[in-house]
Amino acid sequence: MRIGIDIMGGDFAPKTTVLGAIQAREELSDDVQLVLIGDEEKIKEILRSQNVDSNKFEIVHTDECIGMGDHPAKAFAAKPNSSLAIGFKLLYQKKIDGFASAGNTGAMLVGAMYTIKSIPGIIRPCISTELPQFEGKPALLLDVGINPDCRPDVLYQYGSIGSVYANSVYGVEKPKVALLNIGSEEQKGNLIVKSTYELMKDTKDFNFIGNVEANDLLGDCPADVIVCDGFTGNVVLKEAESIYKILLMRGIKDEFFDKFNPEIYGGTPILGVNSTVIIGHGASSPRAITTMIHKTKDVIEAKVSEKLIELYQ
Amino acid sequence: MRIGIDIMGGDFAPKTTVLGAIQAREELSDDVQLVLIGDEEKIKEILRSQNVDSNKFEIVHTDECIGMGDHPAKAFAAKPNSSLAIGFKLLYQKKIDGFASAGNTGAMLVGAMYTIKSIPGIIRPCISTELPQFEGKPALLLDVGINPDCRPDVLYQYGSIGSVYANSVYGVEKPKVALLNIGSEEQKGNLIVKSTYELMKDTKDFNFIGNVEANDLLGDCPADVIVCDGFTGNVVLKEAESIYKILLMRGIKDEFFDKFNPEIYGGTPILGVNSTVIIGHGASSPRAITTMIHKTKDVIEAKVSEKLIELYQ
Repeated sequence: MRIGIDIMGGDFAPKTTVLGAIQAREELSDDVQLVLIGDEEKIKEILRSQNVDSNKFEIVHTDECIGMGDHPAKAFAAKPNSSLAIGFKLLYQKKIDGFASAGNTGAMLVGAMYTIKSIPGIIRPCISTELPQFEGKPALLLDVGINPDCRPDVLYQYGSIGSVYANSVYGVEKPKVALLNIGSEEQKGNLIVKSTYELMKDTKDFNFIGNVEANDLLGDCPADVIVCDGFTGNVVLKEAESIYKILLMRGIKDEFFDKFNPEIYGGTPILGVNSTVIIGHGASSPRAITTMIHKTKDVIEAKVSEKLIELYQ
Repeated sequence: MRIGIDIMGGDFAPKTTVLGAIQAREELSDDVQLVLIGDEEKIKEILRSQNVDSNKFEIVHTDECIGMGDHPAKAFAAKPNSSLAIGFKLLYQKKIDGFASAGNTGAMLVGAMYTIKSIPGIIRPCISTELPQFEGKPALLLDVGINPDCRPDVLYQYGSIGSVYANSVYGVEKPKVALLNIGSEEQKGNLIVKSTYELMKDTKDFNFIGNVEANDLLGDCPADVIVCDGFTGNVVLKEAESIYKILLMRGIKDEFFDKFNPEIYGGTPILGVNSTVIIGHGASSPRAITTMIHKTKDVIEAKVSEKLIELYQ
């Protein structure tokens, strides 16, 4: 297995990304090859400073990169030699099996859509977040930001996509799929959610269990997969992030709330595209980068894309 | 000033409601008359058990009540002698200046719309929640549940309504009004939010400051008033409530998170109707009921309805 890592992506790149890759290299088995995409001189300098043999990695040199503030589509088109664009090129050419970056999120989405592209049959790819639970696996919330306006058929597909993910990555048999709503009753919600409920209620494509409310999401969620539009999902995600930040600010440590730590989470896959792409948090620490690389390996191994391609054939 | 209280409304009524009213009576000045609407025998029995003179209150007797699980519109129509329906009748007849209940929320909304009605010119009334901040006044989020689908003109009005509220109740000069969005840039958001931005951006009706994201809402919000549709607002509210509940469960005490305590909050007014109506939390304790009564007094004194009537004349 070959994992490409955008060494130039992230607020503290290339130092944090190389340090994260070094740690991942130590933890991963030898059949996983890490392909570092970025400025070769700088990468080797950081490796030397850590007394790490650069032969442990494959390095693909480029000194161009897309900045965090660059316009996603323009930068992707204008910088074909950026580390991010080269990562997607390698992925498209199947020279790597997965690509991970903590760089410009918009450019990652553009790159995925322009190179490896959506899986035929999938209307709109999405991104997800893991909602911490008291016990066991996290619940998966999707979409959390790509599609602020979702038609009911798009939300319906998210039920299938999330179900495949929870089954393959978390090993959950028949994942319970719910709609995020503002009441538990069938007739609740906005027009789109009500129509989606109608589509989902008798489905045999996944195990639909009805509505959940936002107070059901964290800790003890009755569902494994929760479907919402990207506007609502982004609001849920950012509210949770801000509360975690406030807890830290106020010096509150707690085992459950530790699960909100982006370092433990690592990154989110783009679901519904023809290969494995993981987007890490811009502010990733070395540990977060290591986790992002592990996550990339897990999603490649779980064959999420292959299973979705098969499902929508 | 005369405040009507639905003594039969709430999960632990009538005991908690009477106890809350007793405490409010002690804290309020003599020019505030509390009108207790409910079963006279039961009210007097609780007053006696607390050694409180029943002459301190006005009691309007009824032994009928709308249950927490009753269908709002059906129950309101079928039970004209319920404490809730009588409260609205008194309010409509201007025999009380404000009405507060911790009872069936749906029936409260139905009651308000069928009796005192929307202010002419206001397209859709709304409810709001207070978002705790580290310092100073809370920020006001609206709508949080009445209107899951909002047109841009409705969201625009919420900017005005919130602005009047923050000015009158919190005493904020030129309240800063923001749109809840998933990015800070103008072109972000779903179709409705983008259209609303266009309507708001050059407004002179209120002090529009642009977008805020969900991670800006709590603690250090740059806006005094945040506008969103009732679906999104309800999600924000319930997520915050659930996190407060989890903090309590895990034994975490903190001064900032104490502000999430519904007992301190007391209740939410229905904004955009022709009088003052406050909806308390179903699970209100006596202290929460007391706070709800204080809130009713504050909103009456702030003349929120009168100011909105004047604004939309």
